[in-house]
Amino acid sequence: MSSDADAMRIMTAISARNPVGHDLGVELVDGRAGYARLALAVSDRMVGGHGICQGGYIFTLADMTGAYACLSRNTQCLTQTAHITYVSPAQRGERLEAEAVEVARTRRSATYDVRVTVGDRLVALFRGQWRLLEGTALPTP
Amino acid sequence: MSSDADAMRIMTAISARNPVGHDLGVELVDGRAGYARLALAVSDRMVGGHGICQGGYIFTLADMTGAYACLSRNTQCLTQTAHITYVSPAQRGERLEAEAVEVARTRRSATYDVRVTVGDRLVALFRGQWRLLEGTALPTP
Amino acid sequence: MSSDADAMRIMTAISARNPVGHDLGVELVDGRAGYARLALAVSDRMVGGHGICQGGYIFTLADMTGAYACLSRNTQCLTQTAHITYVSPAQRGERLEAEAVEVARTRRSATYDVRVTVGDRLVALFRGQWRLLEGTALPTP
Amino acid sequence: MSSDADAMRIMTAISARNPVGHDLGVELVDGRAGYARLALAVSDRMVGGHGICQGGYIFTLADMTGAYACLSRNTQCLTQTAHITYVSPAQRGERLEAEAVEVARTRRSATYDVRVTVGDRLVALFRGQWRLLEGTALPTP
Repeated sequence: MSSDADAMRIMTAISARNPVGHDLGVELVDGRAGYARLALAVSDRMVGGHGICQGGYIFTLADMTGAYACLSRNTQCLTQTAHITYVSPAQRGERLEAEAVEVARTRRSATYDVRVTVGDRLVALFRGQWRLLEGTALPTP
Repeated sequence: MSSDADAMRIMTAISARNPVGHDLGVELVDGRAGYARLALAVSDRMVGGHGICQGGYIFTLADMTGAYACLSRNTQCLTQTAHITYVSPAQRGERLEAEAVEVARTRRSATYDVRVTVGDRLVALFRGQWRLLEGTALPTP
Repeated sequence: MSSDADAMRIMTAISARNPVGHDLGVELVDGRAGYARLALAVSDRMVGGHGICQGGYIFTLADMTGAYACLSRNTQCLTQTAHITYVSPAQRGERLEAEAVEVARTRRSATYDVRVTVGDRLVALFRGQWRLLEGTALPTP
Repeated sequence: MSSDADAMRIMTAISARNPVGHDLGVELVDGRAGYARLALAVSDRMVGGHGICQGGYIFTLADMTGAYACLSRNTQCLTQTAHITYVSPAQRGERLEAEAVEVARTRRSATYDVRVTVGDRLVALFRGQWRLLEGTALPTP
């Protein structure tokens, strides 16, 4: 199961039972095999003393987007390492979008690159590596 | 102003007006010049589908701890890049502790290493680089 | 001075007096403002026990390519941090090509992404951050 | 086979047939299970335009030291990702020492932290992740 329709179906199911994503207000925008696009509006609780979004929430969105892209091939996974570069701050109320693309994937691990933007503005770049586990992302029917 | 007493005073003041930290339940445990120790209990909203803490919250704690250590020298700063390695998962209800130590610091940037643990168990390693800005962390009285 | 012709002129001059690049056999393939492409053949001295190129030489090529792209705007610079992901090994005699693109650049620092390939095969991904120094890359005539 | 004496014996054997290390002049200083210490003098061919050691050679030494520490447990391995932070430059003729310590190790992957110094001066920090392969580092007698 790895076609784009299957991938979107898997990500929709994952999204429906992702309590952390629900709590934050993360929205699934688009998905294909090895690709995901999520969005998140910067809300009050994410905003720190400088009036800008705490970087941890930008990281969380990027990590979740990479994980969705990784799960799109219906394999369980865990983030192993990740690297983030902050390019511009995000403000309260802005809508962050994160796009994850597959860079490499073997039987045991996979790498995804994630760009986080607000409109045309680049906010952060993320590169993460996931360990692939035995077992499918979705329960077998 | 860079003695350990001053550093703890600065971090206490920062902690008192850190809305993101308050919202999550982050606690300032210890601080000195160039050093900080924070704690965070893994609460329901941080727990994902596998019953384990979403890595973004571990990153957020580590990033905040590094920022406190950086701010302890009373200079404004921004996270520029960060790298995290996840070693073991954290479970609902566990108490995460993060300890940041200063690795390098020039006039313009600084590097901090952060270890996140639960008791004796290593949860994650974080290395971040902060850009130092003009202006003090605390308003001059 | 930041047009593409100027950029190529600067990189050609840098290349002519880059003893480390000469020693390894690095070749300047292409350049524009904020962009560079270098090549390096994997020679005997770069090959380790497994018959594959030691990763340090792949890193060196990527770092040099990012530095060229950074220098193309005629500002001195130093690598501050770098992250590399190895995707596939390179063999003795293969021709590595590295392409650096500009991801972000402020007055004080810059980020470049570098892809290292052999033909169509991805060998490694590199993301580096450079500190920009006072002074031009080329001596003023 | 994982005692410290065995580890040193494995690293000595690896060192004896490491052509890249020989070519550069890398020296095995010390080793135990999960730990290695290597040294390298900055020679003419490693020195770039600014009169300082090209960062790629510092990375190469760090990567090799981490690999030795990883191989000390007699398992084949490959560098998967690595992150380096440059703290101070190294000059021609200086003796770099690199020390690798084990941070985490499972059946499938391992993380090592490497400090590169010249005397008491910190030159660079490296954190790398190795994939563990089937097969021993040394041929079974």
